[in-house]
Amino acid sequence: MVTSLLRRYGLEVVFKAVVGDQEDRIARVLQQASLEAALVVVTGGLGPTKDDRTRSAAALMTGSKLATDPKVLSWIEEMYARRGARMPTTNAVQAEVLPGSEVLFNQRGTAPGVRFGYNGATFFLLPGVPREAEGLLQQELQPWLEDRFPRTRVQEHELRVACLPESLVEERLEPLYQRFGAEGVAVLAKPGEVLIRVRSVDAGGSAEMAAMVENLLGDAVFSRAGESGASPTLEATVLTALAAAGEGLTTAESCTGGLIGQRLTSVPGSSAHYLGGAISYSNELKTAMLGVDPAVLSQYGAVSRETAEAMAVGAVGRFGSEWAASVTGIAGPGGGSSEKPVGTVCFGLVGPSVCRSDCLLFPGDRERVRLQASQYCLDLVRRELSGLAPRSETPWMVTSNAGGRTE
Amino acid sequence: MVTSLLRRYGLEVVFKAVVGDQEDRIARVLQQASLEAALVVVTGGLGPTKDDRTRSAAALMTGSKLATDPKVLSWIEEMYARRGARMPTTNAVQAEVLPGSEVLFNQRGTAPGVRFGYNGATFFLLPGVPREAEGLLQQELQPWLEDRFPRTRVQEHELRVACLPESLVEERLEPLYQRFGAEGVAVLAKPGEVLIRVRSVDAGGSAEMAAMVENLLGDAVFSRAGESGASPTLEATVLTALAAAGEGLTTAESCTGGLIGQRLTSVPGSSAHYLGGAISYSNELKTAMLGVDPAVLSQYGAVSRETAEAMAVGAVGRFGSEWAASVTGIAGPGGGSSEKPVGTVCFGLVGPSVCRSDCLLFPGDRERVRLQASQYCLDLVRRELSGLAPRSETPWMVTSNAGGRTE
Repeated sequence: MVTSLLRRYGLEVVFKAVVGDQEDRIARVLQQASLEAALVVVTGGLGPTKDDRTRSAAALMTGSKLATDPKVLSWIEEMYARRGARMPTTNAVQAEVLPGSEVLFNQRGTAPGVRFGYNGATFFLLPGVPREAEGLLQQELQPWLEDRFPRTRVQEHELRVACLPESLVEERLEPLYQRFGAEGVAVLAKPGEVLIRVRSVDAGGSAEMAAMVENLLGDAVFSRAGESGASPTLEATVLTALAAAGEGLTTAESCTGGLIGQRLTSVPGSSAHYLGGAISYSNELKTAMLGVDPAVLSQYGAVSRETAEAMAVGAVGRFGSEWAASVTGIAGPGGGSSEKPVGTVCFGLVGPSVCRSDCLLFPGDRERVRLQASQYCLDLVRRELSGLAPRSETPWMVTSNAGGRTE
Repeated sequence: MVTSLLRRYGLEVVFKAVVGDQEDRIARVLQQASLEAALVVVTGGLGPTKDDRTRSAAALMTGSKLATDPKVLSWIEEMYARRGARMPTTNAVQAEVLPGSEVLFNQRGTAPGVRFGYNGATFFLLPGVPREAEGLLQQELQPWLEDRFPRTRVQEHELRVACLPESLVEERLEPLYQRFGAEGVAVLAKPGEVLIRVRSVDAGGSAEMAAMVENLLGDAVFSRAGESGASPTLEATVLTALAAAGEGLTTAESCTGGLIGQRLTSVPGSSAHYLGGAISYSNELKTAMLGVDPAVLSQYGAVSRETAEAMAVGAVGRFGSEWAASVTGIAGPGGGSSEKPVGTVCFGLVGPSVCRSDCLLFPGDRERVRLQASQYCLDLVRRELSGLAPRSETPWMVTSNAGGRTE
């Protein structure tokens, strides 16, 4: 959060350090930071507990003594009162203030922030709880930056790609590096997703870079954003496409065990187009919840294109949605066989004019297989909703009946 | 992972830094680290992409030149061949080796690690992908530590607490601080869970500290571990209790949307005692999947103890499990009212001799409310399975019929 805010004002982070809860070490790291940079942003260590040492470390560094500020103390007591609680005695320490510093009143918690100057640098001490830090970044650091570094020159775009391995993305991006160099391009991979961030200090440059990325990677790019903020997640992209179509989705999950539902419902307002679904982890529940024929399970196995398709067909039929996506696979570490090794995952998708199933083999451990499976499943829905051709370039595909239109 | 491995050998991390993908900056940070410590562990920047600069930064620091090692190159090509793929040309750069260094062959990926000595310090360069780094930590760093720092003196215990706020935990731990001091106690909070780590450099000490924590926090402690490893998660604890009882659990999730199922199924082998469940996000699905009476929904609302109980009753009845837990709530940001504000979440639990429902009001945003709800739900199951009295000290409780035994 801090880095991305600073980047918007063209400020580069030259030193980042993580330090334990020892006063003297924290003081030395802060001192070092004041030599490296004109602005030092610190998070954490402002809470009420014994291992919250940032206040006293700042006092040690500046050679001053903390003193309780009655105004701050009553502010904290009020924060508790508003929630109908009394302030625990331990929290009084949060009202101890560095002489000559400015207290930054935290609207989202009880730990006040601090701003002070030392050794030619300006220090912002912020709480460690992410949403409290976020509040003070917006309320205090952003206006401070706005005054000093009017935004003009730095431009940034980001794009996200689903279901392509990082090394394949890199190979494709070669022409981008040749034209713009590597300095302004960052490629960040997580299971089943690659985020590409392009950056230019001359206005206009990054838009051109982003367009080139789109050209090179084609419809594997599912999300993009300019300076305005972060690019939408895959789950948010799917929900936007469902909203555009005015249609609803349900899910039938076996090996992902609710991961896809959890991702979709993490998006505020998802209830408008995601109705819910089945976590049909056992064979019995595949039959009871989705009406999968026991004969299909015994003939083809729980992890098969046939079962995946029957799960999706069952979800559409029983849950009354236009779309249903299903996942059944072997996430490991146990349960694999030579015919269906760990990492084998089958997917079904049923929509207004499609009924298809794919079977893939993902690398990695249980967590990685499940994450990749959730990505593939959501991307399957996105591609169908966007009228894209079936995916041809995923290196993990084993079998597919991707053509199976029902119209 | 690195810190926790080092800690087991009594080694303290004195300096941690994060640095961008610029060769000269990385080289300066490595140089600085070599002055601060005798062992420097570096992760990341060994991949095939343009922003992977750790190899060349190490060459810059040591004043030497990287050279392709044919043995390493063919090892990487073999890694790809075993997966049935060709090596992308970009990966050849991973075979460039620092003169005088030892290559650490990575069994889990294509980026080799490196070990070398410089400026009196030993450097381990490891890949950034966590499971690849983990592999080399076990395979290379651990034996190296074992040789030099036989484990004797450091002892550590950790304990986990569910559904108590951090400040309440701190208040209760006051006698621990008074007796043992604050230096060896770390308290780490995340939504709905607090982890307490106690550490002693004299054998025996931390066991005594852990026993005192148990005394002070009582049955809110759900998990503990000695030196042997990490303490089990709440989901693993629930599955262990189900296994001990020889009973099965299903779930019925509304506002958590699959989060609880996802957590349970993240544990290998969970299928033995977690059967699956319903993501009944819409009212229609609460009725279709769980048989919740539409009259209950319209009379009490979807977020009510009555609906929560009906969801759990429906899950036990339809899915054939001994236990069922349900969640229905308002995660926000929209959907709140003055009577049922954002953060209101109701829970149902049905077991062999219990049928109960609770309604709580959690602070925080959508993500935080959902995480706390998943914690409360899992802890409800744990407590009932362990025969503990209904929870009395959660500050977020609104109403409960916690006594409702069905025997």
